[in-house]
Amino acid sequence: MFRSFMDQALLEARAAAARGEVPVGAVIVAPSGEVVARAGNRTRELCDPTAHAEVLAIREACRKAGSERLVGHDLYVTLEPCPICAGTISAARIRRLYYGAADVKSGGVAQGARVFSHPQCHHAPEIYDGLAAAEAEALLKGFFAARRDG
Amino acid sequence: MFRSFMDQALLEARAAAARGEVPVGAVIVAPSGEVVARAGNRTRELCDPTAHAEVLAIREACRKAGSERLVGHDLYVTLEPCPICAGTISAARIRRLYYGAADVKSGGVAQGARVFSHPQCHHAPEIYDGLAAAEAEALLKGFFAARRDG
Repeated sequence: MFRSFMDQALLEARAAAARGEVPVGAVIVAPSGEVVARAGNRTRELCDPTAHAEVLAIREACRKAGSERLVGHDLYVTLEPCPICAGTISAARIRRLYYGAADVKSGGVAQGARVFSHPQCHHAPEIYDGLAAAEAEALLKGFFAARRDG
Repeated sequence: MFRSFMDQALLEARAAAARGEVPVGAVIVAPSGEVVARAGNRTRELCDPTAHAEVLAIREACRKAGSERLVGHDLYVTLEPCPICAGTISAARIRRLYYGAADVKSGGVAQGARVFSHPQCHHAPEIYDGLAAAEAEALLKGFFAARRDG
């Protein structure tokens, strides 16, 4: 089950790479178990520095829910969220955060800003990391290697 | 000059309050000195937890610039940015950040996540705080007091 949701997030990450975007994908699952939103990075295409997979998926799910909060919803994402995304996950009241690869360079959950680890963070999700991390990392490494060689 | 830009941000904050949104306003100034975007909070209206004044203004300026980066641009905002907004300011490569009131409860610049103060933050703006702080704070206090009494 968890694996199936992360597989869908990996599909979104691959689609992002095919569009020339950093390959990160995200999926949102409602309390019913239904996938209500999925997205990959589109920062270049949309000229929007906030168009990360997590933010796009949360925006879509919120639009559908008619609410700025997604109580009881879970987020699956292939890479450790950055501070923008971690802040958005908190503001949207996401219940559980499942992520794949650690992001030593830009992460904001287990390193750096550690957005969920301060009293100024009003909601922290339950966090499960390392899901399908090897695949998520291979996708990112392949993408950046191809750009260096290209 | 600085004061005039912050006055425009305060106008946006007042307009947000009139819409029933938390009164925070932001303005973006291009290297030419021209105001290229202005916005107030619209999280409720748009059902979007990222629709903070800073994020909306940066997205608008990016759309106009046709780029996900706003090199040389300055941001004026009435309240200390939260982690979502600080991360967006960094990603957009904003040159200077001018802000009004400190946000002890949800701020992510001078407290809490301190987004700009980690090696995982790839760009930190020059920061000038406390501009028109009393007015920005009075707006917020008035808004929340009216909601408590209403």
